[in-house]
Amino acid sequence: MKAVVFDSVLKFENNYKDPQLKENEALIRPTLLGICNTDEEITKGYMGYKGVLGHEFVGVVEKVANQKDSVLIGKRVVGEINLGCNSCLDCANSMQRHCKNRSTLGIFNKDGCFSEYFTLPVSNLLVVPDNTDDETAVFVEPLAAAMEIFEQVQIKPKDKVAILGDGKLGLSISIIMSAMNVDYVHIGKHKEKLNITSNMKNKTKLLSDITKDDIKSYDIVVEATGSTGGFETSLSLVRPRGTLILKSTIAAKEGLNLASVVIDEINVIGSRCGRFEPVLRLMEKGKINTKPLITKILPFDKAMEGFELNRKKETIKILLKP
Amino acid sequence: MKAVVFDSVLKFENNYKDPQLKENEALIRPTLLGICNTDEEITKGYMGYKGVLGHEFVGVVEKVANQKDSVLIGKRVVGEINLGCNSCLDCANSMQRHCKNRSTLGIFNKDGCFSEYFTLPVSNLLVVPDNTDDETAVFVEPLAAAMEIFEQVQIKPKDKVAILGDGKLGLSISIIMSAMNVDYVHIGKHKEKLNITSNMKNKTKLLSDITKDDIKSYDIVVEATGSTGGFETSLSLVRPRGTLILKSTIAAKEGLNLASVVIDEINVIGSRCGRFEPVLRLMEKGKINTKPLITKILPFDKAMEGFELNRKKETIKILLKP
Repeated sequence: MKAVVFDSVLKFENNYKDPQLKENEALIRPTLLGICNTDEEITKGYMGYKGVLGHEFVGVVEKVANQKDSVLIGKRVVGEINLGCNSCLDCANSMQRHCKNRSTLGIFNKDGCFSEYFTLPVSNLLVVPDNTDDETAVFVEPLAAAMEIFEQVQIKPKDKVAILGDGKLGLSISIIMSAMNVDYVHIGKHKEKLNITSNMKNKTKLLSDITKDDIKSYDIVVEATGSTGGFETSLSLVRPRGTLILKSTIAAKEGLNLASVVIDEINVIGSRCGRFEPVLRLMEKGKINTKPLITKILPFDKAMEGFELNRKKETIKILLKP
Repeated sequence: MKAVVFDSVLKFENNYKDPQLKENEALIRPTLLGICNTDEEITKGYMGYKGVLGHEFVGVVEKVANQKDSVLIGKRVVGEINLGCNSCLDCANSMQRHCKNRSTLGIFNKDGCFSEYFTLPVSNLLVVPDNTDDETAVFVEPLAAAMEIFEQVQIKPKDKVAILGDGKLGLSISIIMSAMNVDYVHIGKHKEKLNITSNMKNKTKLLSDITKDDIKSYDIVVEATGSTGGFETSLSLVRPRGTLILKSTIAAKEGLNLASVVIDEINVIGSRCGRFEPVLRLMEKGKINTKPLITKILPFDKAMEGFELNRKKETIKILLKP
């Protein structure tokens, strides 16, 4: 089958091996796929992963391993990306995404969704509401990662909140913060990207317009730049005893001074994947508009072109249509 | 007057200018002083501070600026080290230690206590209980910094807790954790220092004895090593969604990878100064034994020798007796 594979180099393969359906799994035919920056990171060595890329999808269940799951056949689904061992305490607590022995779709030890067919455990799948189109549903994974913030931190009505970063990640967080009625300011470098936030009637600010009144003034800052400089700016914005939510994995190559975390007693909270169900609920209610995030939809066969486009500064989201 | 001064170089001065008593202040004659690693850091440029060093003391009030405070004259006191502006919201909330315009005794913009006399606002002072000797009371500041953890985090009876680092800081935390009946393991490199913890009937472990069972297994890890390597070890010990309490200011010179903070959704909490009152209460109840921490008590005139001794690996606390 056709598949986008990373194996020291990124390539489009025409004859990749067909997936094997395992106990409790479903075979899925994707109908829309999203390229994430994590896919790009993997091609630079992140997680040491080799195999089929991709973890953002909407698809249709074609086959199931167990008769009891046959109700799913033909259903349009999305799927959570972490596969737990289902025999540890984390899995028992529905925390498959923190299971020590987990594999992760297209990221660790499990072929991803950028192919004609792929598999996931039935327990990872959620049926997409009928009123939610593919171009909305395909964003459920990154939006769930944004929603995870609300599982970790109580954002109070009067809190002063900033999101730093206006890439895919920052914009996903902005869309969720907006849907959740948080009063926030979205800070970034790109006016045209920040327009997505201001079109939702939320405040924006160019990084260059930060003044000394912003310094140490925010109760909660969400770091979504992915850069060491962004982390340091975030630290300068959060008030003493405030909260810095770290969304982007930061590898500080040139050194990072954490002294102010201690001196100002900052609470730094790492935040990663979230559950899909709350986001699907918002989608069903019509609270989520993902259209402004879509830069281009390419045919699946043009996936390599999609990866190239994804590297451009002005790109937000590239979708691939099988 | 005699004073230990840092002014590009560390020196013992015999004719330093006498302190000026300001509105609402008390003049204090120290009776016992403690050398902290922060003092040593200042001599390497920390905070860009120049002036009289020192912030750990017990002393006697000799004079007060306001008649209403005269009840304090002759009293044996300790004093909180941060001086707020008393006109901001932080100060209104008794958070002088986070006031943006604060000065800090012997650390920032305020001459310290390593001198014959020094001043502090009366509102910073606490009278030492009669049954608490100077050699115990002089530790109230570092022990309050340890107690601050309990203001920030709820440590539950069944939590698996580790303290990493067996220097002054780690041992102060160990003494408070022990007094607060936390079930913890103290991890360090120096058997003779860890003996202070095991003598309090608490668990210890040499860093070299860490096994894979320790990895990602602790609910709460307190980082008190002051080194980048220690921070990284702490991160490896804390469980997914666990808490890492950062006690030592870490300047990563060679780069620090924060990816696991995000991937494992770790809660990193910076923790600094604490209030003295809860520690004085434990001291009055006889729950605190600081004697094992005292490496040597030197006459104040030998302060320079004290700083030299403080740099030795085997030293825990050097006290200076005026």
